[in-house]
Amino acid sequence: MQEFSLIEHYFTRHALARDDVLLGIGDDAALCQVPAGQVLVTSVDTLVEGVHFPLDTAPFDVGYKALAVNLSDMAAMGAQPAWFTLALTLPHQQADWLAGFTQGLSHLAQQYQVALIGGDTTRGHLTITVQIMGFCPPDLVLKRQGASPGDEIYVTGTLGDAGLALKALQGEIDLPKDALEQVLPRLHRPTPRVDTGLALRGQASSAIDISDGLLADLGHLLAGHQLGARLSLPALPLSPVLQHLPTALTWPLALSAGDDYELCFTRPVAPSAQVSQNTAQQLTLLNAHYIGTVTEQPGIICLDAAGHTYNAPSIGGYQHF
Amino acid sequence: MQEFSLIEHYFTRHALARDDVLLGIGDDAALCQVPAGQVLVTSVDTLVEGVHFPLDTAPFDVGYKALAVNLSDMAAMGAQPAWFTLALTLPHQQADWLAGFTQGLSHLAQQYQVALIGGDTTRGHLTITVQIMGFCPPDLVLKRQGASPGDEIYVTGTLGDAGLALKALQGEIDLPKDALEQVLPRLHRPTPRVDTGLALRGQASSAIDISDGLLADLGHLLAGHQLGARLSLPALPLSPVLQHLPTALTWPLALSAGDDYELCFTRPVAPSAQVSQNTAQQLTLLNAHYIGTVTEQPGIICLDAAGHTYNAPSIGGYQHF
Repeated sequence: MQEFSLIEHYFTRHALARDDVLLGIGDDAALCQVPAGQVLVTSVDTLVEGVHFPLDTAPFDVGYKALAVNLSDMAAMGAQPAWFTLALTLPHQQADWLAGFTQGLSHLAQQYQVALIGGDTTRGHLTITVQIMGFCPPDLVLKRQGASPGDEIYVTGTLGDAGLALKALQGEIDLPKDALEQVLPRLHRPTPRVDTGLALRGQASSAIDISDGLLADLGHLLAGHQLGARLSLPALPLSPVLQHLPTALTWPLALSAGDDYELCFTRPVAPSAQVSQNTAQQLTLLNAHYIGTVTEQPGIICLDAAGHTYNAPSIGGYQHF
Repeated sequence: MQEFSLIEHYFTRHALARDDVLLGIGDDAALCQVPAGQVLVTSVDTLVEGVHFPLDTAPFDVGYKALAVNLSDMAAMGAQPAWFTLALTLPHQQADWLAGFTQGLSHLAQQYQVALIGGDTTRGHLTITVQIMGFCPPDLVLKRQGASPGDEIYVTGTLGDAGLALKALQGEIDLPKDALEQVLPRLHRPTPRVDTGLALRGQASSAIDISDGLLADLGHLLAGHQLGARLSLPALPLSPVLQHLPTALTWPLALSAGDDYELCFTRPVAPSAQVSQNTAQQLTLLNAHYIGTVTEQPGIICLDAAGHTYNAPSIGGYQHF
């Protein structure tokens, strides 16, 4: 278990002391204290080399992303992330790779103050499983279920950047170097919207993070209630790079490419103008953009500026299993 | 994510309702309630095909063992296991394999009343990561640290069976068919000593589960305190199959082969004859066997029936990473 000792050593040197970790790495299990009145929130995600990230991805980015996608799940629940475990399967001993990986992982762990509390290293094809744990008062949790007809639909940040970067890396789209450099971090180092998730507690009627593409993930919010949505394509938030590309490219990317790890959430219409103004300010602070409305009619309808229905062509992100 | 849907479907049909699971599979994260006054106990273990189990292991046994080794970590902490997640990487769609795997996993989950609360399925070399979660009052947790000179050392069950089965499977030892059939379940379906762990709360001064072999794992209990141990080889508990083999074979297996998943624990000497008798009865109930004593002198000394020091030859279990 030389590898895990190296990771542990690095994390110990850059120690993140959390009072709620009573026993960390080094025993048969870790002991953590969930605050009184809050519930444990838990999620697990696996990244496989060549499936979830390209073969030549920098080890820093692999470590960063492995934790980022899990933090994003905490964000989608409105949970306060606290602890994580790491199960790392490595093909052979690669001290350099491991150092970079651990730095990326640790960088994000420091930023969000989450502590590594345990793990396992094994030999095999490069596979990283992170389980994240956090907590939330049970009545404030953001769930996928809860949207109602008339609720407004929002997304944070911008959409399609990660998908564009992937297409460029795979040679499917020819992108100028400076444009690629602007969107690549969105693929390799997505920003988990943890603060937004916390701010949305009690505000959003439903929430999800966008890993498989807006249409697919919004579909998860609606499917349980047999609801639909009407989306405004010009309202989709796009980065400067995507704004300069034709909509025939950007709309499919914004609608269907995954890996953006932005939040999509619904909220009831504000009952009064005053509240509405406050909420508008709040949404600006959260970097959240109104993109459409929940409808009673199932199915998601996308409308262009002229009000015509747009049928987004299918577009692949990574071919997940 | 067809595979995880299959697993989920199976687990839903054989539903294990736990009141403390507020939200299970199907959202961005699961919600669980740790009982008031108790702390979260968490452990993660990965099994890689060809490394931690032979290539032709029955899928039922793979599912069983993936959960068993994690339950064993809960046992070693004196924790009450409650929930687990599953990260499953599979080479290709194998409905039959998946059905068997899920049955093995579910069988043990039912037996120990632990609920599957989330997971991820990905494509790649067969790799199974289970994270188990449970709880325990913080002052009753069994830790690796805590042994003192003079403490008695115990192990549960019998030692070396899994190692013998592995050597036979690998063709290194020729074993009669009926003998192999007696020890094989010890390799493929180890018994996590959860009840023993719970009973040892407040009784044991230190505890660990034996995954890497008695000498290695007992070493973990002693190393932190720079202590040693004196073990009686005739006292090592052996199954009928091992009892009929020469000690030149059985002692190395009992001392150094891993994968038994028995508990090794230390306890202070009972202060009076009356207490001692009660404790002896209790230890019999727990199927725990006295094998030696903690010493101030570092290093583990093994003595045969004549009182001669025995140097166990090195013996390999699985070559873990």
